[in-house]
Amino acid sequence: MKFQGITFAVVGGDLRQKKLIEFLGKEGYRVKVFGFHNIKFGEKVEVCDSMAHALGDADIIIGPIPCSQDHKTLFSKYSDQPILLQDVFKHISKDKLFMAGRITEEIQRIANHYSFRVIDLLERDELAILNAIPTAEGAIQIAMENSEITIHGSKCLVLGFGRCGSVLAHMLKGIGGHVAVEARKPSDLAYIKAYGYTPIYLREMEQKIHEYDFIFNTVPSLVLDSQIMQSIKKESLIIDLASAPGGVDFTSAEQIGIKAMLCLSLPGKVAPETAALIIRDTIFTVYSEMGVIL
Amino acid sequence: MKFQGITFAVVGGDLRQKKLIEFLGKEGYRVKVFGFHNIKFGEKVEVCDSMAHALGDADIIIGPIPCSQDHKTLFSKYSDQPILLQDVFKHISKDKLFMAGRITEEIQRIANHYSFRVIDLLERDELAILNAIPTAEGAIQIAMENSEITIHGSKCLVLGFGRCGSVLAHMLKGIGGHVAVEARKPSDLAYIKAYGYTPIYLREMEQKIHEYDFIFNTVPSLVLDSQIMQSIKKESLIIDLASAPGGVDFTSAEQIGIKAMLCLSLPGKVAPETAALIIRDTIFTVYSEMGVIL
Amino acid sequence: MKFQGITFAVVGGDLRQKKLIEFLGKEGYRVKVFGFHNIKFGEKVEVCDSMAHALGDADIIIGPIPCSQDHKTLFSKYSDQPILLQDVFKHISKDKLFMAGRITEEIQRIANHYSFRVIDLLERDELAILNAIPTAEGAIQIAMENSEITIHGSKCLVLGFGRCGSVLAHMLKGIGGHVAVEARKPSDLAYIKAYGYTPIYLREMEQKIHEYDFIFNTVPSLVLDSQIMQSIKKESLIIDLASAPGGVDFTSAEQIGIKAMLCLSLPGKVAPETAALIIRDTIFTVYSEMGVIL
Amino acid sequence: MKFQGITFAVVGGDLRQKKLIEFLGKEGYRVKVFGFHNIKFGEKVEVCDSMAHALGDADIIIGPIPCSQDHKTLFSKYSDQPILLQDVFKHISKDKLFMAGRITEEIQRIANHYSFRVIDLLERDELAILNAIPTAEGAIQIAMENSEITIHGSKCLVLGFGRCGSVLAHMLKGIGGHVAVEARKPSDLAYIKAYGYTPIYLREMEQKIHEYDFIFNTVPSLVLDSQIMQSIKKESLIIDLASAPGGVDFTSAEQIGIKAMLCLSLPGKVAPETAALIIRDTIFTVYSEMGVIL
Repeated sequence: MKFQGITFAVVGGDLRQKKLIEFLGKEGYRVKVFGFHNIKFGEKVEVCDSMAHALGDADIIIGPIPCSQDHKTLFSKYSDQPILLQDVFKHISKDKLFMAGRITEEIQRIANHYSFRVIDLLERDELAILNAIPTAEGAIQIAMENSEITIHGSKCLVLGFGRCGSVLAHMLKGIGGHVAVEARKPSDLAYIKAYGYTPIYLREMEQKIHEYDFIFNTVPSLVLDSQIMQSIKKESLIIDLASAPGGVDFTSAEQIGIKAMLCLSLPGKVAPETAALIIRDTIFTVYSEMGVIL
Repeated sequence: MKFQGITFAVVGGDLRQKKLIEFLGKEGYRVKVFGFHNIKFGEKVEVCDSMAHALGDADIIIGPIPCSQDHKTLFSKYSDQPILLQDVFKHISKDKLFMAGRITEEIQRIANHYSFRVIDLLERDELAILNAIPTAEGAIQIAMENSEITIHGSKCLVLGFGRCGSVLAHMLKGIGGHVAVEARKPSDLAYIKAYGYTPIYLREMEQKIHEYDFIFNTVPSLVLDSQIMQSIKKESLIIDLASAPGGVDFTSAEQIGIKAMLCLSLPGKVAPETAALIIRDTIFTVYSEMGVIL
Repeated sequence: MKFQGITFAVVGGDLRQKKLIEFLGKEGYRVKVFGFHNIKFGEKVEVCDSMAHALGDADIIIGPIPCSQDHKTLFSKYSDQPILLQDVFKHISKDKLFMAGRITEEIQRIANHYSFRVIDLLERDELAILNAIPTAEGAIQIAMENSEITIHGSKCLVLGFGRCGSVLAHMLKGIGGHVAVEARKPSDLAYIKAYGYTPIYLREMEQKIHEYDFIFNTVPSLVLDSQIMQSIKKESLIIDLASAPGGVDFTSAEQIGIKAMLCLSLPGKVAPETAALIIRDTIFTVYSEMGVIL
Repeated sequence: MKFQGITFAVVGGDLRQKKLIEFLGKEGYRVKVFGFHNIKFGEKVEVCDSMAHALGDADIIIGPIPCSQDHKTLFSKYSDQPILLQDVFKHISKDKLFMAGRITEEIQRIANHYSFRVIDLLERDELAILNAIPTAEGAIQIAMENSEITIHGSKCLVLGFGRCGSVLAHMLKGIGGHVAVEARKPSDLAYIKAYGYTPIYLREMEQKIHEYDFIFNTVPSLVLDSQIMQSIKKESLIIDLASAPGGVDFTSAEQIGIKAMLCLSLPGKVAPETAALIIRDTIFTVYSEMGVIL
């Protein structure tokens, strides 16, 4: 996908935004950046010394993911001083597109004073699905690093068959694991059979969970509580990929002596370049959807 | 899954119901049947000579898929005389479960005179997903039978990434095809990438479709119309799996000299035993869901 | 791979040679043919009315597979009269390459009177390996056609893990079968584990064979004899892919009521075009190997 | 596989032998050990204070892999003092089996003074094949740890299609990589096609190698020399799995700025438990082969 003549501005963010800037520059787009102090980019990238300059004539303004951690200042790992959301928003022109992650109600309220359009990238289904790829691969890397057996030939249990669970199960099987998936919806269980995994029904969990060498949780509720933890064998490795409050009773795991790890935000950590490409693709899809009405 | 003490009645149907009766009998259930003339079953199966006898004390009554082709009589391939829906329904006791396929409004209206519960099996998502397995395998068999090349190493295009499209793509890749999938929803396209198929955007279709040796349609709207048909190479094989009105302009294909085949209701044709097991599993899932309130 | 200025001659053969002629012509090679009566080829192909004309200035002469069925005349399905091997050989110039299949000692003896070089294509390992692809796919097609269940979800046993067994196991797993492979060599059993199939040791065969829905034999010795046949369940389908004397006691299978099928020469039957391409690729590999000394 | 009444002795070794002792003990075998100071084993394991005691009545004596690093003393990571090979060998009874890795001529010469039988485990094909599993998985782990992209969706090149190359290619594809394999033998190239990888011919290497994100070498000769290194892109990651002298010009890689890593003996490092199980399985296979003549 290639769009002629768009100007991008990128403000704040972390390694993913840094890489995104490089990609856009290499693809020949005009990119203006603010909030990346002491970082050198290729010559096509315009490092701006004021927000006004950076955002003035940009068509698409890309913010961080998450947009803010305190609902007031921009999340900006490479900036040498805090950047207020309001200072960003007031420089975005009418009808332009601002895309960032986790636009909370408070952030939206600030944005409402201006007349640009806001897209929450984390609300985009395709971003979440594509992020399941580096998440799954990161989970596999962590499983490999923290066990004395190979995944090949091991017994793997995936809890949940949503975006992350389905992609993870696919990769685990691809590398040679014997994969079982626990899910509740009859339709998920049907897909689990269709894709050749062993379906595990909730009612069987307690009885069967001791068989598994690796247990990956993707369900954002307390699935592995202190009771079921009693049935897990000590040599198992538990990897929790679910966002807060998570699905694992870590205290209980520690008491029993089961290794359990909470692994969040894997894409940016294990594959920042892939994560940046996913953001780029999502931005382009959104833009092309809106394109008709621009 | 095993349920103690249930009595099944099976009335009408085709080869799938016949096999279903045998499975239930072998599993130790009491099964009463009506509408299967001149067919011998195992000794546990009670072949009844009246509807009243067959349905009187059954907990779950299994009808045909589809339930009826004329909204009046039961679809019953092995019956030597027509069976009126009304004659079936009036013998089903209060609160019992009647499960069959495609319960139209007209059929529902007749059932409403009685107080049993009706389940349309074809409305069950898991049945449709599981049926995608024999459908995909049947499509592959037909593709093999109608081409002079192997699927292995060939270029396959799947139109649509719903239940059938996703399972078919998985199998085609498994057998060694180079698989591309056309879809429209950004979330489908994201899954297509995650599963390692080549995503094809609608806007690229006309330009790229000539590359493909096998084209499988699963979209129930006219995707392959007379215009796009011009871009397909003559050696291609088109297999349409979409229900009426189907997605292929067959007249146009014939004029150009492209082999195009409409393949419907594959599960019962290519794998009646698997199809019967799928019906069985779905019945048990429904029953177990309802079980709590029985 | 592209070779400038070679002239091919094709004499005799079946549908595969016919397709091979078309491929070579389309790729821009000069192709002279003899022994294909009443068959029309593209305009680049020179249909010759004498052997002398066809073979006179050809660099590579392609014969049938097998070369002959009686060691005297050329195997030639489309010729309206018998062609003596001797009449072919005497027209092949010094140092030219003659490639065909199954060059027996008797055929070699006739060829020895002349000074061209002879290559037995069936002795080429890569041809046999590539032929395993259409063979495996054909076996799968036949299994689908002759059973009432899907391969997906079924239990498949492959006897032997040579060229055909290994490729077949890979495809069966790819389509969703639960695949076990019986082999004897420890190294084969190690690969069977590495590729994720269930290894079956000879000593377990009799005890475990009753579990399998599909049994594919690739071992050219009587593996499934009358004794082990007693342990196979009646609903199983046996497909024998091994060349004579084959590996199945068919009489015994019939007496017991087990469906067993001998399926030979599948590539030319189920995928003649793929089979022709495999011959073409092998010819080119041979030529490129010899090229240095030409 | 289960053998009644065998007594094992394990002398020297590393983490793999330590785990092997535990497995054998848990399986109910009598295990006597020497050379594991300050290490606690389960109660079934007899920790012996003299070599004579440990080896006196053992049927199978398991030594380290490699047996020795100096051809004189036993390789023994957990021993607090050097153990002479001769002191081991003189306690092994007539006709008993001694199995260890890399039995050099010098070691064999010492053993020849006694009348036990010697098996070099590293000469066993099945051990090498099974070790390809943890080697490949370790290579994947290292690739994940040392790159900013996912393997999923990346372009991977495997050099060589022997035991390690074939298993690695299978896993890389399973995790979603686009896999190409370079090989020279026509039969290897045929298998590469059959398994669905892109075959790379030696003659294409220089032209195509710049496309690849990950390059895995399994060929024990200088494949990636200073010349071809010029064609590799800077962002590539090279992982060399070939034993000495290895296949990569590391000096040249460093000068150009390409990350290249030599990764040897991965099984014991990344998956010691799996490595121990592989040794165990190989020992049992050897024993069962010899069993007939014991």
